[in-house]
Amino acid sequence: MEKLKVLFHVNENEKWNAALGNITNLFKDVGDEGADVVVLANGPSVAAFIDADKVDQMKALAERSVKFLACRNSLKKMCAEGTVCIDENSLPRFIDIVPAGITEIIKRQHDGYAYVKP
Amino acid sequence: MEKLKVLFHVNENEKWNAALGNITNLFKDVGDEGADVVVLANGPSVAAFIDADKVDQMKALAERSVKFLACRNSLKKMCAEGTVCIDENSLPRFIDIVPAGITEIIKRQHDGYAYVKP
Amino acid sequence: MEKLKVLFHVNENEKWNAALGNITNLFKDVGDEGADVVVLANGPSVAAFIDADKVDQMKALAERSVKFLACRNSLKKMCAEGTVCIDENSLPRFIDIVPAGITEIIKRQHDGYAYVKP
Repeated sequence: MEKLKVLFHVNENEKWNAALGNITNLFKDVGDEGADVVVLANGPSVAAFIDADKVDQMKALAERSVKFLACRNSLKKMCAEGTVCIDENSLPRFIDIVPAGITEIIKRQHDGYAYVKP
Repeated sequence: MEKLKVLFHVNENEKWNAALGNITNLFKDVGDEGADVVVLANGPSVAAFIDADKVDQMKALAERSVKFLACRNSLKKMCAEGTVCIDENSLPRFIDIVPAGITEIIKRQHDGYAYVKP
Repeated sequence: MEKLKVLFHVNENEKWNAALGNITNLFKDVGDEGADVVVLANGPSVAAFIDADKVDQMKALAERSVKFLACRNSLKKMCAEGTVCIDENSLPRFIDIVPAGITEIIKRQHDGYAYVKP
């Protein structure tokens, strides 16, 4: 069977529990090999990338092939606003940076990924 | 004309009014025969399935062919957390259970359903 | 390269900043000619159409070809509820009215627009 391609869009920090729970349930249902999962974080949700507990949960999913992407525009904006400054180079290796998260969200859908907003 | 296929994703309990209103407006606009509507409830939104007023509104739409799906993972999680325990077998007959709501959301999109998050 | 077609769905008034920021970032990333952007506002978000500051930001994007659509059902509902009454004819010319926003959201996806919910 073809893999279920899906992009999770997380732009609010309080949505991480739902998103990570959804992914865990998806793997339980279709198997780790049954889904191609991308998580795109933009807006305030990028703050979770320095939250040790959240990062641990993400890392466990990354080891099961989930791809985590952080929006550079959002990291910069959060820092400029004085909310939180996260140095890209200090991020865990499993988190990839994309210059504009919004472009990624659109392109993935055009590449056949379903869109889910937890 | 081909039917407009659409999946409504409701994962917050306070989004039901918007979702049910959207569906009513959709039918008013394209006619009951003009749309193929699925509503997938996961997360805390499943609590509405024991809210008599909400269930009445859903039932009226189900009689106009809207398909209501409840996520089993979410029903179990709500009960395990001590929020609310809903017995699947006590649910109104028009509500169908799916083992994992997230899989349904993805598969429906791959089957050509538009995705709407009220 | 083909334009990136995308529909932004804004149904909460507090989501405008995220939506307008997303669009600005999208243009910065792919160029004004690189994206075909539609913004569909329904629910309480239509109140922003009489907020001078928001309208100014929208107008600047409309001049860069973004299409803004307001749901007539939502304008009527907001007025009937006593929240805010907005006369269609007093809206800025760059805002188009659609009879049912929900139908537009579905049709655009079937026409190949990606869906983004800020």
